[in-house]
Amino acid sequence: MNFDKNKVKNINIAYIGGGSREWAWKLMLDLAMEESLSGNVRLYDLQYKYALENMKIGNQLSAREDIKGKWKYEVVNTLEEALSGADFIVLSILPGTFKEMTSDVHYPEKYGIYQTVGDTVGPGGIIRAMRTIPIYLEFANAIKNICPEAWVINYTNPMTICTDTLYEVFPEIKAFGCCHEVFETQKVFASYLLEGWGIENVERSEINSNVIGINHCTWFDKVSYKGMDLKPLYKELSEKFNKIGYDNHRDKKFPVHPMGYKLLIAFDLYKKFGIIPAAGDRHLAEFFPDWYLFEKDKITSWGISITHVSYRIKRSEDFNIFREKIINNEQKLEIKKSGEEGVKMIKALLGLNDLVTNVNLPNKGQVKGMPINAVVETNALFSKNGIMPVFSGELPLGLNNKILTHVNNQNAIIKATVNKDIDLAFQVFTNDPMIHLNYNESKKLFNEMIDNTKEYLSYWGVK
Amino acid sequence: MNFDKNKVKNINIAYIGGGSREWAWKLMLDLAMEESLSGNVRLYDLQYKYALENMKIGNQLSAREDIKGKWKYEVVNTLEEALSGADFIVLSILPGTFKEMTSDVHYPEKYGIYQTVGDTVGPGGIIRAMRTIPIYLEFANAIKNICPEAWVINYTNPMTICTDTLYEVFPEIKAFGCCHEVFETQKVFASYLLEGWGIENVERSEINSNVIGINHCTWFDKVSYKGMDLKPLYKELSEKFNKIGYDNHRDKKFPVHPMGYKLLIAFDLYKKFGIIPAAGDRHLAEFFPDWYLFEKDKITSWGISITHVSYRIKRSEDFNIFREKIINNEQKLEIKKSGEEGVKMIKALLGLNDLVTNVNLPNKGQVKGMPINAVVETNALFSKNGIMPVFSGELPLGLNNKILTHVNNQNAIIKATVNKDIDLAFQVFTNDPMIHLNYNESKKLFNEMIDNTKEYLSYWGVK
Amino acid sequence: MNFDKNKVKNINIAYIGGGSREWAWKLMLDLAMEESLSGNVRLYDLQYKYALENMKIGNQLSAREDIKGKWKYEVVNTLEEALSGADFIVLSILPGTFKEMTSDVHYPEKYGIYQTVGDTVGPGGIIRAMRTIPIYLEFANAIKNICPEAWVINYTNPMTICTDTLYEVFPEIKAFGCCHEVFETQKVFASYLLEGWGIENVERSEINSNVIGINHCTWFDKVSYKGMDLKPLYKELSEKFNKIGYDNHRDKKFPVHPMGYKLLIAFDLYKKFGIIPAAGDRHLAEFFPDWYLFEKDKITSWGISITHVSYRIKRSEDFNIFREKIINNEQKLEIKKSGEEGVKMIKALLGLNDLVTNVNLPNKGQVKGMPINAVVETNALFSKNGIMPVFSGELPLGLNNKILTHVNNQNAIIKATVNKDIDLAFQVFTNDPMIHLNYNESKKLFNEMIDNTKEYLSYWGVK
Amino acid sequence: MNFDKNKVKNINIAYIGGGSREWAWKLMLDLAMEESLSGNVRLYDLQYKYALENMKIGNQLSAREDIKGKWKYEVVNTLEEALSGADFIVLSILPGTFKEMTSDVHYPEKYGIYQTVGDTVGPGGIIRAMRTIPIYLEFANAIKNICPEAWVINYTNPMTICTDTLYEVFPEIKAFGCCHEVFETQKVFASYLLEGWGIENVERSEINSNVIGINHCTWFDKVSYKGMDLKPLYKELSEKFNKIGYDNHRDKKFPVHPMGYKLLIAFDLYKKFGIIPAAGDRHLAEFFPDWYLFEKDKITSWGISITHVSYRIKRSEDFNIFREKIINNEQKLEIKKSGEEGVKMIKALLGLNDLVTNVNLPNKGQVKGMPINAVVETNALFSKNGIMPVFSGELPLGLNNKILTHVNNQNAIIKATVNKDIDLAFQVFTNDPMIHLNYNESKKLFNEMIDNTKEYLSYWGVK
Repeated sequence: MNFDKNKVKNINIAYIGGGSREWAWKLMLDLAMEESLSGNVRLYDLQYKYALENMKIGNQLSAREDIKGKWKYEVVNTLEEALSGADFIVLSILPGTFKEMTSDVHYPEKYGIYQTVGDTVGPGGIIRAMRTIPIYLEFANAIKNICPEAWVINYTNPMTICTDTLYEVFPEIKAFGCCHEVFETQKVFASYLLEGWGIENVERSEINSNVIGINHCTWFDKVSYKGMDLKPLYKELSEKFNKIGYDNHRDKKFPVHPMGYKLLIAFDLYKKFGIIPAAGDRHLAEFFPDWYLFEKDKITSWGISITHVSYRIKRSEDFNIFREKIINNEQKLEIKKSGEEGVKMIKALLGLNDLVTNVNLPNKGQVKGMPINAVVETNALFSKNGIMPVFSGELPLGLNNKILTHVNNQNAIIKATVNKDIDLAFQVFTNDPMIHLNYNESKKLFNEMIDNTKEYLSYWGVK
Repeated sequence: MNFDKNKVKNINIAYIGGGSREWAWKLMLDLAMEESLSGNVRLYDLQYKYALENMKIGNQLSAREDIKGKWKYEVVNTLEEALSGADFIVLSILPGTFKEMTSDVHYPEKYGIYQTVGDTVGPGGIIRAMRTIPIYLEFANAIKNICPEAWVINYTNPMTICTDTLYEVFPEIKAFGCCHEVFETQKVFASYLLEGWGIENVERSEINSNVIGINHCTWFDKVSYKGMDLKPLYKELSEKFNKIGYDNHRDKKFPVHPMGYKLLIAFDLYKKFGIIPAAGDRHLAEFFPDWYLFEKDKITSWGISITHVSYRIKRSEDFNIFREKIINNEQKLEIKKSGEEGVKMIKALLGLNDLVTNVNLPNKGQVKGMPINAVVETNALFSKNGIMPVFSGELPLGLNNKILTHVNNQNAIIKATVNKDIDLAFQVFTNDPMIHLNYNESKKLFNEMIDNTKEYLSYWGVK
Repeated sequence: MNFDKNKVKNINIAYIGGGSREWAWKLMLDLAMEESLSGNVRLYDLQYKYALENMKIGNQLSAREDIKGKWKYEVVNTLEEALSGADFIVLSILPGTFKEMTSDVHYPEKYGIYQTVGDTVGPGGIIRAMRTIPIYLEFANAIKNICPEAWVINYTNPMTICTDTLYEVFPEIKAFGCCHEVFETQKVFASYLLEGWGIENVERSEINSNVIGINHCTWFDKVSYKGMDLKPLYKELSEKFNKIGYDNHRDKKFPVHPMGYKLLIAFDLYKKFGIIPAAGDRHLAEFFPDWYLFEKDKITSWGISITHVSYRIKRSEDFNIFREKIINNEQKLEIKKSGEEGVKMIKALLGLNDLVTNVNLPNKGQVKGMPINAVVETNALFSKNGIMPVFSGELPLGLNNKILTHVNNQNAIIKATVNKDIDLAFQVFTNDPMIHLNYNESKKLFNEMIDNTKEYLSYWGVK
Repeated sequence: MNFDKNKVKNINIAYIGGGSREWAWKLMLDLAMEESLSGNVRLYDLQYKYALENMKIGNQLSAREDIKGKWKYEVVNTLEEALSGADFIVLSILPGTFKEMTSDVHYPEKYGIYQTVGDTVGPGGIIRAMRTIPIYLEFANAIKNICPEAWVINYTNPMTICTDTLYEVFPEIKAFGCCHEVFETQKVFASYLLEGWGIENVERSEINSNVIGINHCTWFDKVSYKGMDLKPLYKELSEKFNKIGYDNHRDKKFPVHPMGYKLLIAFDLYKKFGIIPAAGDRHLAEFFPDWYLFEKDKITSWGISITHVSYRIKRSEDFNIFREKIINNEQKLEIKKSGEEGVKMIKALLGLNDLVTNVNLPNKGQVKGMPINAVVETNALFSKNGIMPVFSGELPLGLNNKILTHVNNQNAIIKATVNKDIDLAFQVFTNDPMIHLNYNESKKLFNEMIDNTKEYLSYWGVK
């Protein structure tokens, strides 16, 4: 890298999972709009074809005259090539295919267990962890050997477990996990500041919030805008809309969109615990299954759907068609900011600006009441070559205890994987609050889910 | 107190709950058989009448010629009188009456929740804690003010919570909690050493075991007898009897006796976790309700019964008749050791012998993997004016995580009580693994159980 | 307080030590230049006269037309009046008089112990702590009772001990300690960026630094300016000037000014430990007395002087004359920013802007390698009603160990004071690295210093 | 090993440093007197000749008819052979020769630094650590690879550092360090119980004491004999003999014997800190050098001598002559217990008896106020395959802080050695309270001591 008057050139980014759409395209667009950075992006993906297509799109983008951020995209064949010389590494993979995801999310329905997302906790989250952790063990070792000084940005779920695994293998790794769930909650405030209080032009990033929790189960105990305490506003909002819901900040609305939600669960949890939930209802529900997911026929009354994997498959197919059109110049990529903060973070780590935002990092004490080294989500200060978590306080005790069950499970599933201890993995499975089965039933479900996804569990010696 | 050549005279013991049978009589008998100690015992009980009767019995005992340990028993009217000048304090109370106990144990059955004992965890344990902690807050404050240097021996359940509350109020208190569940497991070994290996005359106290856990959910990771590792013996035992059960060490046999059990749950947990359970099956079951208690019709197949409170009422009535006969010299008290260790502990704390045995104490690190200051059960070294817990290692991770849920709940229910925060108390209630109800159902159950026992919940301002 | 469109009115500030010049005037000027804030300042001082004079000056200032920040100043007679209704509290006192300070700084010279400042560590720092802590115990109790929600800004030395005492008494206090030593080091960088690298117009606050340490012994392990790593610049600077010294950033130059210094000690410590010292040489020297202060005749060769208290007395007298002139309108106060950050901090705590700057706070983990709850100095994020320390890493082990001696002493001197345990206070005294005396000599010195300052040690029962 | 009715056969002991006299002979004699154990002892020593001679003596001993414990002694050529198949490992080496020891102890005298022993702390202790730690790194790795399940008994000094290094390399090692200093203090009590209170036949091991501290700087906060508190006895003793000293429990008396001492330092420290010192005066003095060692001409007034290494050389030569006589049957080895507890410990670890005694182990919390994992000396419970430290409380704060300096140095010198960081080693050196030199002088002394002992510092790359 070369630093030159507020600009940095020759940055090397390794993009693992470089054939993806969502995250890869967002990054390409954000890089394209940022004039202070330039360099190379190496795309690596098990599905070489998609990485190649993204390379074409990236380079097309760089060739456009209306683009300020010039990057050279290339595709590589191995993880090692991608990492070699990297300054930044983006990890954004899908562990397994939609087939495995279908088992994760929907198979437990046979046993009366309903999951809205199925990638974080619950039987789906745990089985997904079991096939993801081995990949991350490999990533961590490769980074340790090839580019130990590189910054590692993780976007893959289960977020907590992926980030934690990296640190488990290589405690000095400079890794952090990013998730935009918190942004959505900030958008709620921006939206309602206009509606409720008539304040215009509020940017999400101007909503000042103190973030506490673990990924997909984050909370605000303080939130303000230009010195004004917004907690009363949330109270007002929640009381006004706790029957009909509120989704004015969202493009994807329930029930039309399978990922829609109406904050009914957030409002309910706010009432129960007195603290503001800062993740989407579909994620929150999975942490309190007895209350929101246990009774199938009542799930939609909470303004959420079980997002069926078939929807994801369809979306993916549509996208591939769209990608072809872009490559063939039949359609043009719209240049607009993604709303993600990856590029801002890169700039901050290069010292071009300071940034305080929420990330997933091992607990050094930033969350009181959670174990040291468990990966938690709080604000952190990004500056020249440093991410320093900000001490964020603690959750209400009754809530904290519920979350600790998952923190302990996340720790144990990593230990189980490292030691290939499938008995321990199963014990974790039985300790998830979604599992109300007797021992034999839970064993049966576990074994069947393992069997459904065994192609991606060779690490475990499963046959 | 006066020390004189291996004897200690003028010891003052305050017995709170001094009208009780079980523990009071055991202590009186053990004191009667110990020649190195003498002094006064002050009995205090809300039911003055029973304390008075025990006083008579105690003094009758001291008057007998075949008795070596001479003590003077008296009854006092207030806690303060009992504590004044005390060297040792025994806490052994029943919080509430059988009416409240009936609600604790049996009321949740309406909601499909079955408890074998109902005094430790589960809805019964939590409600019982809610009426016990206020009493213990009072005890702790009184001890702090009146006799801060006295040793405090707790026998009341919920053991963990009672002991913890004392330390919460008065961190310098010299208190510890005693439970005999571990002894029963040592008796299993003594019994099977004879049966299985033909070794005779093994005393329970010769079974050398490393104890780890929390009260009523304790485990041995090491156990030996005269240098012989007994873990293989337990494996043998468990494999041989995991269908038919083993209860040769017990007077009270299932299904005849409502408190009988056959180690079927212990053997099953040993198989699941690879470590030896060291509490009775009726207690263990409550920590793993999905496996042993969730399906009503299968409970007895595990060799345990739901001990109905009516049995306890009957036993109590029988005993009161028996007590009358003793007082009226119609029957004579048999002099024999109780098998409890209270008197041995007192001797050790007076420096008359060293003793290593299991007790409940705040965690100073003796159990790795559990929070510092949570009350845990491990061995401790008793010596002249000191109880020093012994570093005992840790439980297997998958098991530890299951127990942590209870440890966290126990901490939270104390905090809830101290702050009279009934919302937090209810959050704890919903976090118990026995509660699989939706929010409204769990709230209904909680409120009804509170209402059933409200006479003993005035501290909470419940009406 | 009232919030209204980026402005906050009716703020109440309590200024304890409100008769002081340095800090009180700085605050008055900074408030005068800040248009977004207004309200009342209550001045309280044992020397009522000086508080009264400052009141006049403050109100004169508010009356000026060229002033944007309008405040009403008043004098109160008691601590309680000052604190009543306070939103912010400034603590800026002189514990004792110049007479006591003279004993602190110069009396140990009789025993061959030389101190450059004598207010932080060493015999002077410890005796000063012994008369300051009792005052802070009183402050903390008063704040706890009268205005527990107020923000407390401490400027008094010994900084670490004052801040720690507040938290010792009232753990929920919203207090922090501010010191400008770190700013001076940032100015070195700004100055040398111009000189060495030709970069103009660098503001101190643009120097991005990661601060680690305890007050007056702080260090930078990272420092950058607009993305450029400045560690190589410091290396260059230190190698170029390690003989002749560098003080271009300072008004007060050695040897002309008694508080001058030339960075010779900073450069030397940088060479010894490989990390950038971020406090003035006069303070740093006291933490490494064997190297810089033990041999009297070599002290000035390090570019520092023993700042004699007579200089402070003279400066104070000059100032009182100047103050009279201001009040009598013979001279006019120049309106300029103080360079301190107190007002910026207040704005940030009111939510008017975010701020990351260095402060003294109990260690929640922000400094690894130092005890939890010891007061340390690092960066913190100031935002709406919250100061959240930023996790700052750790010092090199060999350096950390040297500082731990002081951290441990600081903890112990507070415990000694709380318990009025003068034996422990003396043990702390003998554990300071400046004390190379045998037991009797050290006892003699301690007793004499106590006797010299006994008028301000009545708390201890010293006669 | 074979267990058979309270006896254990075929035990394999590896004795590293097997050519030594003191510890090897003590072990051989104690084994000879113990009928429940038998097996093989493999002696390994860099000085093969002495190991061979000890082998002959050991086998002669086993051949004697009056001997109950039959062992076969053999000499091996490599560490690997010694460790192979070992059940127990004894580490008892002299790192370097008397030449290096002479530099350690006496060379600093040129700089006015006097050491009574010079093997624990101070310049001698640190340089000795620098040549010992590399050897222990090798031991730990070999044990990890060859016999990870063996029990490791360390007798080598610096005790704390040797034990800590083993755990640093191999955290699961089953190692502990043994020292008899505490026994001497127990003998003081036994001796004075007779003299002062007329109680006869008290065994050292009957003195019940709670041990807290680090090796050679241990303390009793509780001590009793058959229920009698002995603290008042120590007070009486110290007040009666604080001028003339007390050494009735010792064979080696000051000033005749170079290792004599009279408890004058112990009595003085007791007065200063109010807790009973439980190590010999010659060791204690080195932890408080300003008080006892700084002024050369006053050292003997404390009833201790600088033990000159020439004495050790002479003693060694005498012993070699004696050893020859034994081998040649010119003299016969007297069979008597050594007073050490190694064999008792082995029996306890085999489960043949329980034992509570003092050992050096990593801090799991047994000493509050000292860092977790620092090696501390407290009581521990030895039982079948387990050593469990006993929670022992904490030292008075002022004393604890003084000892923490050494604890921190001990940690740092190990880190320095592991990383071959000689700069850090020197920083540790300057942080020892014996070093009052300026930087250049301390550097000179360090370099000269390194140079003096460089033959044994090849690990460091020193030439």
